[in-house]
Amino acid sequence: MSFVKIEEDSDFSMHNLPFGVFSTRDNPRPRIGVAIGDQILDLGVIKHLFTGPVLSAHQDVFGQPTLNALMGLGHEAWKEARGVLKKLLSANESTLRDDVTLRRDYTDFYSSRDHATNVGIMFRGKENALMPNWLRLPVGYHGRASSIVVSGTPIRRPMGQMRPDPEKPPVFGPSKQMDIELEMAFFVGAGNKLGEPIPIEKAHEHIFGMVLMNDWSARDIQAWEYVPLGPFLGKNFGTTISPWVVPMEALLPFVQPNPVQDPKPLPYLSHDDPYTFNINLFVSVKGDAMKEAATICKSNFKYMYWTMKQQLAHQTVNGCNVRPGDLLASGTISGPDPESFGSMLELSWRGSKSIDLGEGGSRTFLKDGDEVTLTGYCQGHGYRVGFGPCHGKIIPALQQ
Amino acid sequence: MSFVKIEEDSDFSMHNLPFGVFSTRDNPRPRIGVAIGDQILDLGVIKHLFTGPVLSAHQDVFGQPTLNALMGLGHEAWKEARGVLKKLLSANESTLRDDVTLRRDYTDFYSSRDHATNVGIMFRGKENALMPNWLRLPVGYHGRASSIVVSGTPIRRPMGQMRPDPEKPPVFGPSKQMDIELEMAFFVGAGNKLGEPIPIEKAHEHIFGMVLMNDWSARDIQAWEYVPLGPFLGKNFGTTISPWVVPMEALLPFVQPNPVQDPKPLPYLSHDDPYTFNINLFVSVKGDAMKEAATICKSNFKYMYWTMKQQLAHQTVNGCNVRPGDLLASGTISGPDPESFGSMLELSWRGSKSIDLGEGGSRTFLKDGDEVTLTGYCQGHGYRVGFGPCHGKIIPALQQ
Repeated sequence: MSFVKIEEDSDFSMHNLPFGVFSTRDNPRPRIGVAIGDQILDLGVIKHLFTGPVLSAHQDVFGQPTLNALMGLGHEAWKEARGVLKKLLSANESTLRDDVTLRRDYTDFYSSRDHATNVGIMFRGKENALMPNWLRLPVGYHGRASSIVVSGTPIRRPMGQMRPDPEKPPVFGPSKQMDIELEMAFFVGAGNKLGEPIPIEKAHEHIFGMVLMNDWSARDIQAWEYVPLGPFLGKNFGTTISPWVVPMEALLPFVQPNPVQDPKPLPYLSHDDPYTFNINLFVSVKGDAMKEAATICKSNFKYMYWTMKQQLAHQTVNGCNVRPGDLLASGTISGPDPESFGSMLELSWRGSKSIDLGEGGSRTFLKDGDEVTLTGYCQGHGYRVGFGPCHGKIIPALQQ
Repeated sequence: MSFVKIEEDSDFSMHNLPFGVFSTRDNPRPRIGVAIGDQILDLGVIKHLFTGPVLSAHQDVFGQPTLNALMGLGHEAWKEARGVLKKLLSANESTLRDDVTLRRDYTDFYSSRDHATNVGIMFRGKENALMPNWLRLPVGYHGRASSIVVSGTPIRRPMGQMRPDPEKPPVFGPSKQMDIELEMAFFVGAGNKLGEPIPIEKAHEHIFGMVLMNDWSARDIQAWEYVPLGPFLGKNFGTTISPWVVPMEALLPFVQPNPVQDPKPLPYLSHDDPYTFNINLFVSVKGDAMKEAATICKSNFKYMYWTMKQQLAHQTVNGCNVRPGDLLASGTISGPDPESFGSMLELSWRGSKSIDLGEGGSRTFLKDGDEVTLTGYCQGHGYRVGFGPCHGKIIPALQQ
């Protein structure tokens, strides 16, 4: 289909065409492009070829240094762009840039039932594992946008206040319970006006595309700080996303039936069309002394209980406005099997058992020098639609 | 001191010189200015007069449509600008604009001991009023930046999910417990790099100035959603700030000793210099049928337990990065006397008694058409340093 050679296991097949921001050695100016195989199509160079009814008047969005302007044009524009791109391919020696978007607000949901149940059992016991509101609405909270970074950015172990012994005063020091969270997130495209909700029937038109996300967490800091207003410093020292935004159009062929929701959600959260996606997910850890990374989690995005449509409808039902570049994340994705648990908190069952890394190594939480990589892809017949790696290495705390 | 006539009770005396964004009938372009009496000094027109060692190379910041660039220059630049401004005054017929800054991340703290105690007594009883972490660190959470609006913007009553009867399923409808929160907030000036905390000794240099804030709250939505990840839709449908940013230099003459903190905070939160401010605060409500607004709260910013230096040092101690234009808010400010309680939740003691508005009117929570105005000022000898009004009117819910 393309003159670019694409391996069968490439994340970036013709069926994908994810958007990103890149620069080249010869031209360091950040500009937007589309990944295809191991090449990047520079959209600025071919912007005059977007001559369809919507884009002909907005070719300038392809010359921007971020994706926000394209996202803001809305669903019809994205479909039109995708149609043009399928016909056009060229090659460039390129390096990825970190500013995919000018990110604004960031929401983190808590929409995996297995994850919420696991955490509930650990902290409140089996009888009260799920809070009363959990099956009624997609619980979420506002996260920190400033500390969202792109794959490859090192993550410094945070200093902070914690209370390891509840009988003694709190102490200050480097976190001893550095964890990962396997998540996915979607970028909002066109936004809404303050005071005017996005109904669930229109939600898809506002969802631009998806990335992988590692929501690094310091469990000891989080445990001490989070009552009653939620996570804060235990989460906002770094959140890593994968560098390419995979359009929803590329993911729709991998849609499958939604999970049964009982009790039935209120009407503003109800939709019958499938919006659950079969995306294979993996987490690997490579310690300083290890030759190869060890896979510690095999999961799938299909394990989500609440859909992205439900999340966006809920986020805006009170009139809250979303804007192009806003990011809404799934929360930790865990499946029913222990190997699919999406955090070390769950994999080590709150530190009570060790996670085997092979080569004689093991972990309960992360050590300095550990490299964590999230990967994910949809498997088609002879091709993949993938995300590229979401990678970060833990560097030692800055001692004061 | 100035050729502009300034009334003794003007918010904008020569001792204030707050920054804002304005436009005029003749020139609708948004630009930055300084309020003086009932006039505005256009900083773009006089930018060539900023010839000091820092600003001479950065005169362009005064030609920007927001304050972010000036904020980002840092403390020495702000002091230099203030020195120049005290010598220069001119007049313009002007209207205020809403985009004071390109706002980015927004944090809301919970730093009034009386407020936290009142809420704790109502929801958990007198014995467990303050959570164990409250006296150890400034509890806070991430708020929504997109829905921060400037004084005068109408606030639509939000629709949402709530559970008024815990024995029955949740219901959907307009909030019946619309409340205000009397807060103040500060803008971050120069930021820090991800991974590099701002030590408390340097915090003042990163704090640009302050505004009044009304953190509108839907108590019924909040009560049902907030466990375990904190407030979300109960808070993010609108947050109003006053239009002028009062520089910290203008507030320093009104500093007073900090409250005694027992237990003594950890070293990263400890500072001995006073950073508590004597700012008189008022909340008034005017119903549709009322001729005059009724004052429902008289309070003072000096009632805060945690200082802004402590808030900023805590926010960044884990390496979280802040950026010019970030907003950090106090949380509801309540004092020891019932008349100083900063929310209707407290003033009506969770709806159990009515708040007298005179003229035969009363409230427990807000009605459609109610106009709420926050005002605040420091009282000098024969002059004031004030904030201008922080105003909003409740408009009816958008029925689906």
